[in-house]
Amino acid sequence: MDAGGGAGEQLSLAAVRDQLIREEDSIVFSLIERAKRPRNAPAYSSAGAGGSLAEFFVREAEVLHAKAGHYQKPEDIPFFPQDLPPPLFPTKGFPKVLHPSASRVCVNDAVWKMYFDELLPLFTADGDDGNYAETVALDFACLQALSRRIHCGKYVAEVKFKDSPQDYTPPIHAKDSNALMNLLTFKEVVEKVKKRVEKKARIFGQNVTLEEDTVNKQDGNARDSECKVDPKVLSKLYDLWVMPLTKDVEVEYLLLRLN
Amino acid sequence: MDAGGGAGEQLSLAAVRDQLIREEDSIVFSLIERAKRPRNAPAYSSAGAGGSLAEFFVREAEVLHAKAGHYQKPEDIPFFPQDLPPPLFPTKGFPKVLHPSASRVCVNDAVWKMYFDELLPLFTADGDDGNYAETVALDFACLQALSRRIHCGKYVAEVKFKDSPQDYTPPIHAKDSNALMNLLTFKEVVEKVKKRVEKKARIFGQNVTLEEDTVNKQDGNARDSECKVDPKVLSKLYDLWVMPLTKDVEVEYLLLRLN
Repeated sequence: MDAGGGAGEQLSLAAVRDQLIREEDSIVFSLIERAKRPRNAPAYSSAGAGGSLAEFFVREAEVLHAKAGHYQKPEDIPFFPQDLPPPLFPTKGFPKVLHPSASRVCVNDAVWKMYFDELLPLFTADGDDGNYAETVALDFACLQALSRRIHCGKYVAEVKFKDSPQDYTPPIHAKDSNALMNLLTFKEVVEKVKKRVEKKARIFGQNVTLEEDTVNKQDGNARDSECKVDPKVLSKLYDLWVMPLTKDVEVEYLLLRLN
Repeated sequence: MDAGGGAGEQLSLAAVRDQLIREEDSIVFSLIERAKRPRNAPAYSSAGAGGSLAEFFVREAEVLHAKAGHYQKPEDIPFFPQDLPPPLFPTKGFPKVLHPSASRVCVNDAVWKMYFDELLPLFTADGDDGNYAETVALDFACLQALSRRIHCGKYVAEVKFKDSPQDYTPPIHAKDSNALMNLLTFKEVVEKVKKRVEKKARIFGQNVTLEEDTVNKQDGNARDSECKVDPKVLSKLYDLWVMPLTKDVEVEYLLLRLN
């Protein structure tokens, strides 16, 4: 989190929302990039004891990112946190705007499973073009963008808690996840976000040409079938996984908020 | 190169152009992503004998990509080719559609210098937000996309040579770079590409909202000042650097074509 994160500054809901909206662009871009390549199944099959290429790549990329100073912020969570090396270069501290328990909240196992088991088959074509190394690097970018967006739920929860502690304190003390989930759910917001990511996929995934194509582009955007990633996959991704997992993060964070 | 690259298949100009057009999207996306972060100068300052964080990151990322099986294709060229490890996972061979000398053609030193010295200050805001690790990872994505696009010039040159060997053979034998450069230059194509990348930056870099904003979006696109990367930077990038460097690759390739 950067916006509104100055020392002593209050986290604002507007700043958190801006960050979430910007993360949407990153998610859409990373999926469009991954969709350049077909499924490339050999990248995911276990090569003996060492696991798959995808697992190897993410593990080693996280080691490198940790050496470079990544994973200092509560929304940047590695998928393989075991034995990550310390930074080799000077890092700058980030203002602590969250409860210290924030670092313990992590749903990356669910993000990993969702991405490889559910999402990948929805937006990549069947096939094998041999570009396995490129493929797993693109997967890593998707995973990072999804994980960051979802773990930004910690900021959402903190802002909501600060706005009305009287509403959140009783269910936190009662460890009542369902009551917290209800407090955090706004149906209109969910529908708006789904529509917006779908629109982003339509705009960012079109084939841009210099000609004005009046037949195919009724509203200045491409037909869905011509988009590099089906816009409906984006609204589904947010509906079934990104927003529910973000709420899991929010609930987990709130349950630790008064420790 | 993938399209039209089946074994024994002829490389077609249409397939090469499609690939170049798709690479434009990757370049625009990667620049928009990098523009999320300000300049972050400390990532580029030398930290003693070890060089800068940016250099460390690219070097180590290339080691990892090589282990994963990258850098097998003539357009995928590392910036630090010395002592790269062999792939640790099975790779699939790619059809050899180029002259064997293709692997020797590399302008990455020029790409590196251009990116850090010229381009970066044009599209990143002044400032330091401390996200150095994220910043250099985004730089690496930009460098890779630019380098791949530029080294696709090898395919362009091969197609053009195959189309009219009678035109290219004399200047190749005479080692006449200027004559080759003239043969490879099509002013109308240059202008078209510049316009298209500018349009892509306008479309992909807009802030997408659900509201139809008729005041600011005369033609369905955002005003340039609201774009995440100034569209004019994209046309300048292509005009001053991407297309000239691609032509350098084409000429270098052709000069080796009859060896």
